[in-house]
Amino acid sequence: MRAAYHEKLDALSGELAEMSLLAGEAMKKATSALLEGDLDLAEEVISADNKIDALRSQAEEQAFGLLALQAPVAGDLRSVIAAIHSAGDLERMGDLALHVAKAARRRHPAKVLPEDVAPYFAEMGRVALDLAQDARQVILTRDVELAFTMESDDDAMDDLHRHLFTLLLSKDWPSGVAPAIDVTLLGRFYERFADHAVAVARRVVFMVTGKMPNTPEA
Amino acid sequence: MRAAYHEKLDALSGELAEMSLLAGEAMKKATSALLEGDLDLAEEVISADNKIDALRSQAEEQAFGLLALQAPVAGDLRSVIAAIHSAGDLERMGDLALHVAKAARRRHPAKVLPEDVAPYFAEMGRVALDLAQDARQVILTRDVELAFTMESDDDAMDDLHRHLFTLLLSKDWPSGVAPAIDVTLLGRFYERFADHAVAVARRVVFMVTGKMPNTPEA
Repeated sequence: MRAAYHEKLDALSGELAEMSLLAGEAMKKATSALLEGDLDLAEEVISADNKIDALRSQAEEQAFGLLALQAPVAGDLRSVIAAIHSAGDLERMGDLALHVAKAARRRHPAKVLPEDVAPYFAEMGRVALDLAQDARQVILTRDVELAFTMESDDDAMDDLHRHLFTLLLSKDWPSGVAPAIDVTLLGRFYERFADHAVAVARRVVFMVTGKMPNTPEA
Repeated sequence: MRAAYHEKLDALSGELAEMSLLAGEAMKKATSALLEGDLDLAEEVISADNKIDALRSQAEEQAFGLLALQAPVAGDLRSVIAAIHSAGDLERMGDLALHVAKAARRRHPAKVLPEDVAPYFAEMGRVALDLAQDARQVILTRDVELAFTMESDDDAMDDLHRHLFTLLLSKDWPSGVAPAIDVTLLGRFYERFADHAVAVARRVVFMVTGKMPNTPEA
């Protein structure tokens, strides 16, 4: 029974890892779609989101099955609960990538981003992909050290986000209200994507160490 | 054992109901702080948020205890899992009210909102409070009909949010980039607050009917 249990728990982690992979890829492609005004790529991200949603339902059903049939306790129970939370965070990461892709589609053939802010988004896209990939590794390996290094990537995202606002608010920012609104919302989507990736890693840390790192306030 | 179990489950619902109450009050006060530039009220919301966070931890620990000690199955298990999700949504609603209060504090003694958008926020604040109060009722009574009526309040919030953008984007909007950024983020906080309240109600519907209503895509 214990062996069967751990096999099922590993399968559940495998699904979460797959969700991280898909969410990271979605944000990578959505960023390219945004920067290059690439409609096909935006459509690809939009139509792929239901795969992440389906994996979330599947993960939640598996967690339900584990709880109902195996009645785990202590650390095993914590693992299943962490998986339920992480599935939610990862689905949300997919949604945020979807929002970026939809912004790219909405403005096509125009580009959404004024040229001066594009490099910020290129960098935020890279950091987002890194965080999704690290979250995947942390899920698969329970590497607490790696989970902690993700905090500094999250700080880097927050810094980029802050600099972006400084730019928008400088007196000579030339692009006006409409692009400022797009940039504000898009910046928020990347920042939240990072927060959710870090939340996934924090749950793993909690599972392994029994202590929850301080939660971010975003 | 079954009686003890249901007593504990009721206690858990009671905590979620308390969280809804606090989140609704927080958003109501944060909205007043925003509209009136009231620093004391903003500070009150900011310092009260840790109470919602503490209730979330408490709810999660209680859910953990229920799962570990009672190993519920079927509908009972679904209730506990729904409670775990709802606690997360309700904590997030508290965070979003906190963000509104912090925006009010950041700009004090200036008001954050240009006069022409203030009525939208007054209305969004009312809808947010309604939704939090309805979520509380749905948690306590499992009233599926009430849960469904919340969808139309959520639609009202989305409409307000859309009209707000129409106003910001009109050619003669006089206030420029900086207030547009504040208004954009604040509008998003109210919209997300509503989404989370509806998510709480949807989980109850799922628990009662076994079917999940379509999830919103926000």
